[in-house]
Amino acid sequence: MRISIIGGGTVTDDARETAAQTGRVVARRGHTVVCGGLGGVMEAACRGAKAAGGDTIGILPTDRRADANDYVDTPIATGLGHGRNALVVMNGDAAVAIDGAGGTLSEIGFSLVFDRPVAGLGTHEVRGVEACETPAEAVEYVESAVDG
Amino acid sequence: MRISIIGGGTVTDDARETAAQTGRVVARRGHTVVCGGLGGVMEAACRGAKAAGGDTIGILPTDRRADANDYVDTPIATGLGHGRNALVVMNGDAAVAIDGAGGTLSEIGFSLVFDRPVAGLGTHEVRGVEACETPAEAVEYVESAVDG
Amino acid sequence: MRISIIGGGTVTDDARETAAQTGRVVARRGHTVVCGGLGGVMEAACRGAKAAGGDTIGILPTDRRADANDYVDTPIATGLGHGRNALVVMNGDAAVAIDGAGGTLSEIGFSLVFDRPVAGLGTHEVRGVEACETPAEAVEYVESAVDG
Amino acid sequence: MRISIIGGGTVTDDARETAAQTGRVVARRGHTVVCGGLGGVMEAACRGAKAAGGDTIGILPTDRRADANDYVDTPIATGLGHGRNALVVMNGDAAVAIDGAGGTLSEIGFSLVFDRPVAGLGTHEVRGVEACETPAEAVEYVESAVDG
Repeated sequence: MRISIIGGGTVTDDARETAAQTGRVVARRGHTVVCGGLGGVMEAACRGAKAAGGDTIGILPTDRRADANDYVDTPIATGLGHGRNALVVMNGDAAVAIDGAGGTLSEIGFSLVFDRPVAGLGTHEVRGVEACETPAEAVEYVESAVDG
Repeated sequence: MRISIIGGGTVTDDARETAAQTGRVVARRGHTVVCGGLGGVMEAACRGAKAAGGDTIGILPTDRRADANDYVDTPIATGLGHGRNALVVMNGDAAVAIDGAGGTLSEIGFSLVFDRPVAGLGTHEVRGVEACETPAEAVEYVESAVDG
Repeated sequence: MRISIIGGGTVTDDARETAAQTGRVVARRGHTVVCGGLGGVMEAACRGAKAAGGDTIGILPTDRRADANDYVDTPIATGLGHGRNALVVMNGDAAVAIDGAGGTLSEIGFSLVFDRPVAGLGTHEVRGVEACETPAEAVEYVESAVDG
Repeated sequence: MRISIIGGGTVTDDARETAAQTGRVVARRGHTVVCGGLGGVMEAACRGAKAAGGDTIGILPTDRRADANDYVDTPIATGLGHGRNALVVMNGDAAVAIDGAGGTLSEIGFSLVFDRPVAGLGTHEVRGVEACETPAEAVEYVESAVDG
């Protein structure tokens, strides 16, 4: 399946490491990473997924595919600005939210709108987000929520 | 100025009454209501604003202006579905969030992205949302935050 | 009703004058001008409409209402870039196309998609666009097409 | 590179056959097909590309990946309705237009906006569209226009 990894472009080293691990776990378990295609959590998640031989889709706010980070296999330009956040969520079967500010919160909101299960790793504490301790736990949670 | 009143289409009687009062306060203080143009909190807010002689803008998810509730002066069709939530926030100078589920959470997220002050009335408790007790308090909060 | 006046941001003096006249005719006949909110044909059309006491709506590509030209009464920010062209057409009952390049062509295409009658004044010669000689003729054409 | 194949959902047998041939040529020459993901020209183009071992991306108007035709490898849901036409063009390096009505015309318009070379096969005769006789000629035209 596809798992959207959502989180901000400006992150701490810890959040970046968590994102890279999450990308690796997602890829190892045979899933594709969907993300916003830029830096920070998005780049780290794609880097992790590629290191584990996985596939990555980056849904960009700009109208230029060239703006994608180096670890995006399939860049999709939208020209929608922050409005593309809806598409990041819509194109996954579930989401893992890592750290993040307002943009991530909007994506968590859209996850609830589109009935996507969401696991959280050090992110907003909101009803509907399953707070997890590790990337493995987060991915297992969304796998079982989608299957269930 | 323009104040976005955000909240769900399916609401309790209490939330509907809060929305109508908020619309009235916004209009009495000379501001225009911006909302998502449909029912529930959106319709009640517009109804309140019109009762107090104010103006209302409804930014619709569909591509048909006719889908706006009866109290919208200026319907704007978008055809963007839930993606129009970004536009509801972008077109106000500040937001008041009332009750609401995932869609409202996405709008709170966009409010933070676009640096719009947000007052909350019985809504998600999220960092960046000023929890208020009454519509008057909520409108005064966003007025002072925009001026400040 | 609402009439979308579509055309480019970079125009000849002739096209600008045609746009201003079209805005005046639209307003005198009691209709509201909808346009893309920026310069060139868009600004001239709004200026003409305001000179005749009419109302104007500008649907902007950017996420900032402040980017609207000085003659827009109701600016709507979208952040959609060129994708907002669909909204310019969707929010009118008919369209008048003046001069213009690719963006105008996309709006003519959307007019056909959304079944909006289109009158053309020195614009693309495309099946479905009624080529007219004067602004008055163009506005009368779309009035009768919408009523018919 | 990526080539957007644009055209309507309702087509003649001839247009469908032209689309399938175009998809095959695009794939044989090592390019990826981008299209709107639905039926008619879109489905035939993807079918042709898959028959030749190529890759296909379908950018859908709906918010459901499941709406893609059976020959789309990478479906992208947008929920933007006809507004997704901008994205179909934006995500290719060039376009081939086949037959089509208003939607195709909007995509030709966006091709000009985004400076994408466009070859036409039995489609709108518009300045900026290179009218071609065969799929091979169309693909060769856009290849040389992108390289040039």
